Amino acid sequence: MTKPDPEVVKAAVASQRGMVETFFARLAEGNCAKPGITRDTYGEGENWGHRVLLEHGERAGLQARSDAAANTYVTLPGRDRAAPRILMGSHLDSVPHGGNFDGAAGVLAGLVAIAVLQDLAVRPACDITAMGIRAEESVWFEVSYIGSRSALGTLPEGALDAKRIDTGRTLAEHIAACGGYPEALRRGERELDPAAIRAFIEVHIEQAPSLLEAGYPLAICTGIPGNFRHPNARIIGRHDHVGTPRRFRRDAAMAAAAFANELDRAWADLDAAGTPLAITFGRFHTDADMHGMTTVPGEFHFSLDVRAYDPALLVQIEAQLLGMIQRIETERNVTFELGKRAAAAVGVVDPAIAMAMTKAAGRLGIRSMPLGSPASHDSAAFAAAGVPTSMLFVRNEHGSHNPQEHMEIDDFLDACAVLTHWVVESAS
Amino acid sequence: MTKPDPEVVKAAVASQRGMVETFFARLAEGNCAKPGITRDTYGEGENWGHRVLLEHGERAGLQARSDAAANTYVTLPGRDRAAPRILMGSHLDSVPHGGNFDGAAGVLAGLVAIAVLQDLAVRPACDITAMGIRAEESVWFEVSYIGSRSALGTLPEGALDAKRIDTGRTLAEHIAACGGYPEALRRGERELDPAAIRAFIEVHIEQAPSLLEAGYPLAICTGIPGNFRHPNARIIGRHDHVGTPRRFRRDAAMAAAAFANELDRAWADLDAAGTPLAITFGRFHTDADMHGMTTVPGEFHFSLDVRAYDPALLVQIEAQLLGMIQRIETERNVTFELGKRAAAAVGVVDPAIAMAMTKAAGRLGIRSMPLGSPASHDSAAFAAAGVPTSMLFVRNEHGSHNPQEHMEIDDFLDACAVLTHWVVESAS
Repeated sequence: MTKPDPEVVKAAVASQRGMVETFFARLAEGNCAKPGITRDTYGEGENWGHRVLLEHGERAGLQARSDAAANTYVTLPGRDRAAPRILMGSHLDSVPHGGNFDGAAGVLAGLVAIAVLQDLAVRPACDITAMGIRAEESVWFEVSYIGSRSALGTLPEGALDAKRIDTGRTLAEHIAACGGYPEALRRGERELDPAAIRAFIEVHIEQAPSLLEAGYPLAICTGIPGNFRHPNARIIGRHDHVGTPRRFRRDAAMAAAAFANELDRAWADLDAAGTPLAITFGRFHTDADMHGMTTVPGEFHFSLDVRAYDPALLVQIEAQLLGMIQRIETERNVTFELGKRAAAAVGVVDPAIAMAMTKAAGRLGIRSMPLGSPASHDSAAFAAAGVPTSMLFVRNEHGSHNPQEHMEIDDFLDACAVLTHWVVESAS
Repeated sequence: MTKPDPEVVKAAVASQRGMVETFFARLAEGNCAKPGITRDTYGEGENWGHRVLLEHGERAGLQARSDAAANTYVTLPGRDRAAPRILMGSHLDSVPHGGNFDGAAGVLAGLVAIAVLQDLAVRPACDITAMGIRAEESVWFEVSYIGSRSALGTLPEGALDAKRIDTGRTLAEHIAACGGYPEALRRGERELDPAAIRAFIEVHIEQAPSLLEAGYPLAICTGIPGNFRHPNARIIGRHDHVGTPRRFRRDAAMAAAAFANELDRAWADLDAAGTPLAITFGRFHTDADMHGMTTVPGEFHFSLDVRAYDPALLVQIEAQLLGMIQRIETERNVTFELGKRAAAAVGVVDPAIAMAMTKAAGRLGIRSMPLGSPASHDSAAFAAAGVPTSMLFVRNEHGSHNPQEHMEIDDFLDACAVLTHWVVESAS
């Protein structure tokens, strides 16, 4: 079979612009809560995304199915149905008040690649699948990579009993309500055998402005950060009158400030030395029920997320952090209760695919740069399961996880062109 | 007229124990909200306190009246009704979920002194008045010393339009609803002419554990701190994804931590040098509506209270603080909006009265120590108006502004004995 020319592939991708715009608009129709876009994990918002994906698959004459975790697969059958397949995709949920592109762009990129194969009448050597993944945004259940790890059979013990922070219902209940089979997941059944996946490729908007700063439309991922997290940590001191002298105080807010600031300075030093790391206190607050301008805060709440590409650095920072806490507890007569600890391993990308993607971009005349993923992604779950994995990042203004997230469709089509060219090269 | 012996005065005060216990118990009956005691300013809770005070005055055959701000005065007439009077008192409101003694003890101490004069058939040279003051707890209207400054005609411009943080109704509306005359206050009418007050004496629980630590039942105040405050300050940054690299972040929580920690270190240095000062962030929190473990906080809220006995130190700290803010704004690409600024002048106590109180304690065999007031008090408003002012602090466990506040009645009676002895000496 003759491979289509790079220019032909690029033009075929460009002709998908109408489909792309329609798909994004249709997705936005199912928004659950403004401002921005809310596609709640295993809820009405996410369900809408999977419905739009299924509708598209049926209209395009593709094979569609769901698994026990209610992930959706839309497949263009290959010449050899038993050959390891190429999987492209990302998640269809969002944070509350996020944007329309975070996650969804990766699913649509897979659909674009498949549509181009159909347009150019390329019958691929193996199955080519676009996967709509469930429950990537850990804000809802405080568990990472629920959909992808369910599919791969690597969901951690106890995850099905995690409760959604707003509904209070368990993950198992939510999966069942969305047409999935939590009992199959409990028995350890998996939809995807890593050995039967030739590659997992995820297109995703960049969640930082590095591409914008550098002036590139596209980046090829060099690694996905691992993390450790404490979603619900507390500091216990003592509520006191505003006139209480310093030596008697057990001020939980000042202890929190000291802790955050010390951690931030450690990060600043590493950052100055060029070591990538990110430390975020998403929640950082006194107790609203006890607020008073004239009350020394006796209780403080925070969430902590620490992420890096180097597993050894994560271990080092965590040890450093525990040392800080011990000292602050003594100095300020307070107690830290870090609560539940969650962690995700560093995601290693496949260097051969990354190189092939870089070459594909070059051949298509698309400028790209290498970039460590700022965020965590389902790709990390695939990489951890041994699947050759790669990610493409699309330039995005105003960051993500907020309503101002903004990706140019031109940039997205550049990413689709690189992806599609690679698929054509790999599966013709 | 022969002055009664110190021992006789002390015994007469001790015999008031039943009245004291009954009065505190009756006050607690009007509690508005558990846990602890809530006597809301110009609300049901505070009104109850004034009702109990009036009831007592009537039963004891004293003269009772209210002023335009609904403060309550209970008076034992003197031989010369035109002579400058002795005023004793404190406030009858509380913070939400405070204790039964903060404020109320000072009103009751005045009633004890008057009851002893009656018991011992001492007809004083001048009027002796116990004053129940309104609205001292600035948490409700975010304005200091409303009741005492209304009585003295020194309420600041605009205060009557301040809104109570929970009801949203103005101070003027609340005063009118409690039987006062806000229009008289607007016209600048005052109940008390400072020149017609010989002294204002306030007994108050200590709001820190200095007496407990030192093992003294009683302290004689050496000064009342002035303060400056920002009840509703904000830091504006930008909400971003957790993967956003450090150089792009505009993290409002990290900016807050840096600010609080730097201010705290400046305080620690002054404290180590023995300079009294207190810095409190009563509210210190990210925006609950935008909380997410994976979102960099783009907004932060805090209240700030800075207090000291030295006006020059307050000026210096404020300048230092504004310098810190300017630097942090530049370093972290955030904006501080300090919002409304409120301030109260340092309260200077009358050294002659303090000395007389110290001698009175010595003569009664009651151990006392000098102590700077940890907190702000109505006394500061009287001192600012030129009234000779003194305060007595009573040992108190567990601090105040919380339900665990605890004063021993024995210690309170010691304070009453010193007060009464001084009144007898001054007004016989």
